[in-house]
Parts: sequence; structure tokens; C-alpha cells
Amino acid sequence: MPHLVMLYTRALDDATDMPALCRRLCDAMLAVRDEAGAQVFPTGGTRVLAYPAAHSAVADGTRDYLFLYLNVRMARGRSAAVQQAVGEAVAGAARAHLAPLYESRHIGLTVQVDEGHEVYDAKHSTIHPLFAKAAP
Amino acid sequence: MPHLVMLYTRALDDATDMPALCRRLCDAMLAVRDEAGAQVFPTGGTRVLAYPAAHSAVADGTRDYLFLYLNVRMARGRSAAVQQAVGEAVAGAARAHLAPLYESRHIGLTVQVDEGHEVYDAKHSTIHPLFAKAAP
Amino acid sequence: MPHLVMLYTRALDDATDMPALCRRLCDAMLAVRDEAGAQVFPTGGTRVLAYPAAHSAVADGTRDYLFLYLNVRMARGRSAAVQQAVGEAVAGAARAHLAPLYESRHIGLTVQVDEGHEVYDAKHSTIHPLFAKAAP
Repeated sequence: MPHLVMLYTRALDDATDMPALCRRLCDAMLAVRDEAGAQVFPTGGTRVLAYPAAHSAVADGTRDYLFLYLNVRMARGRSAAVQQAVGEAVAGAARAHLAPLYESRHIGLTVQVDEGHEVYDAKHSTIHPLFAKAAP
Repeated sequence: MPHLVMLYTRALDDATDMPALCRRLCDAMLAVRDEAGAQVFPTGGTRVLAYPAAHSAVADGTRDYLFLYLNVRMARGRSAAVQQAVGEAVAGAARAHLAPLYESRHIGLTVQVDEGHEVYDAKHSTIHPLFAKAAP
Repeated sequence: MPHLVMLYTRALDDATDMPALCRRLCDAMLAVRDEAGAQVFPTGGTRVLAYPAAHSAVADGTRDYLFLYLNVRMARGRSAAVQQAVGEAVAGAARAHLAPLYESRHIGLTVQVDEGHEVYDAKHSTIHPLFAKAAP
């Protein structure tokens, strides 16, 4: 945890640089700090995955609408302030990246942050240790 | 909100017209009315996204099973009657579209409606305003 | 229900046999038994769907990180022991399949089990009846 999953209308792949958006969103998540100034999300555990839909239908279907849904799933128990900061960081990065499209296209963006309420959770990673801090 | 995400075994793309199913499901969602007769979902905010799985395993794997999972995520706070009406509209549209396959194939359909319980929610759309009603 | 959805970095498709992993995970789910020794998941209702991301960003992006997220959604109301057994079966099967990659690659695996809290649920299947047991 955490991860960000993007679900979107496929035409966005032609309209903007989606790999760059993935990187930008990941960097935005890594930059979030908590009330004590500490990095909220561990570098080795932060992921963005983007999925263009094979097929879609948006609104009344009469125009070439673009739609992008961003969902962050993060561990439960963070403060409301941190949850809000995460959402704002992600939404801000997405809006900045998509700004040119808002001038020329009909586009909808929704950003939601969920707390996980899983009944089972297990991790096995050889990425995390790369970023483990040495003890002071 | 709302959106409907379809996850399904890839062979369905050859067995039925999935873009048409997307449109039919979107229309079914737009046609749902609440107890007062008002449209439940705003036209500009209703989306269907369909995802064939790259790989899958179903049941015992001995036949060419087809599987389709439909998940609607809608804002929390709607009445139980409206939630039920949404589910029935979506399930009914899916069953009608898939009826020919039920005659000839082994196929499973699951429809679920979730209320979102997000801790952060933001929207930025140039689609919504297209459908804004003029003040009376 | 239940289903298992895999979201992962696309490079995994070149690094390991993902269809085989789907089958192995499905078999692992079907093998789970409850406290009374009964099969937890009905054969005809158990599904694994795998989705490589079209685009992704992982951690600091400086290496060819692999990432795999497995999410099981099962009906609510199972005992904590059964939920734990499901998670361990899935995580164990995934770790066993991925073991060679842990030797050679930077890879992260997360397994989570969610209880569904849907407000509407409908199923229509011609797979389930294939596995219905004859009355004793």
C-alpha cells in the first residue's frame, strides 16, 4: 500500500501522455507529508497502475467525451488531514497534467481516496528494502 | 459518480457485442428514477467502462466458461429502494443483452452495487455543464 | 462470488507464466476448507481475472520493478478463520509461483481479501448448476 488505479476511456491514450501522468501521480503521492513532516507513503510501496477501457459509454454518447477515474487505496487509520492531503495532491497533479485538455475537450475527472478495510493483508517485497533507512 | 465497471473473460468479446452492452447499460442507468420521479444519475456523470481480462481461470477450467462481473459504484446516502432499482435496471439490461448466450454457452453473470465510502472525493468536469438544466 | 482480481505491471507477462498463475490461484481458492471440512467456495462461482496495466509507475521509477496486487472479494459473514485461510492459500500460491522472480528481480506482491458490502447483489449463472451436487 498504497496504490492508485486509473480507469479511463481509451481515447485518452491519444490525447495525452499517460505514462507521464503515472509518474507525476506517483511523485505527487511520494511528496505528501504528515503533520509531523514525515513522508506518508513509503517509496518502495507506492504504485500507480493505469487501465484504458477496451469499451466504454459516457453520458449520452453523442460526443467524444473523455473520462478518467482515479482511485487511491491506502491503509486505514490515517488522520483526516493526511487523507485530505493525499486526495489534494493526486487531484492537483491530475488537473495540472490535464489542463490543456480542459481547454479543448469534454472531459470528466473524478478522484477518490478509499481506506482499505481488508480482512486479510499480506505483503512480500524485495522493493521495500531498497529504500529502508539506515538506523541513526 | 456513478460508474459501472465490467470485468470479464476475454472470450466474451467474440461472443457478443460489448460496446453495445456498454451503451445499453449506460442508458439503463440513466433511465432509473427515484421515488419522486426524478432521474437518479446525472447524464453528464454516468459512465460504463469494460475490461476484458488478459488472463483468467474460471471454476474447474474444463470448459469455455464465460464470466462477467458488473460493479456499480454510486454515492452513499441513496434510499434502499433506489439502490435496488439501480441494481435491477443494470441486471435486467445485462440479462436481456446476454439472453442468446444463456441458450448456447456456460456463462456466469454477477451484478453488485456498492455505495462509495471514500474519505476524499473531488470532481472536475466539462461534461456535466453540457447537461445542466436552465433555471425555470 | 468469490473472485480474485490481479492488477500488475505489464512486464510480469514476460517474466512469468500468468495464465498458469491464474489457474494455480483458482485451484488454491477451491481447495480452501472451513472449520467443518467443507469446501468454502463453490466450484462454479470461483473466478480469477488478471489485468496487466497499460501504463504504470512504481516507487522511484529507477529500476524495472515488478508489482502484483491480488484482491479477493468474498461474501460477507465468513468466520475470521476462514478469511485468514483464504488469504493464506492465495498468498502461498502466489509466492510459490513467483519464487524464481524473488531471486532475480525487484518485485512487490500484495494480497488483500475484502468482504463485499454491496447494497445489491444478483447472479445468473449456467455454470453453477454443472457442479450442483445430487441430493444424498
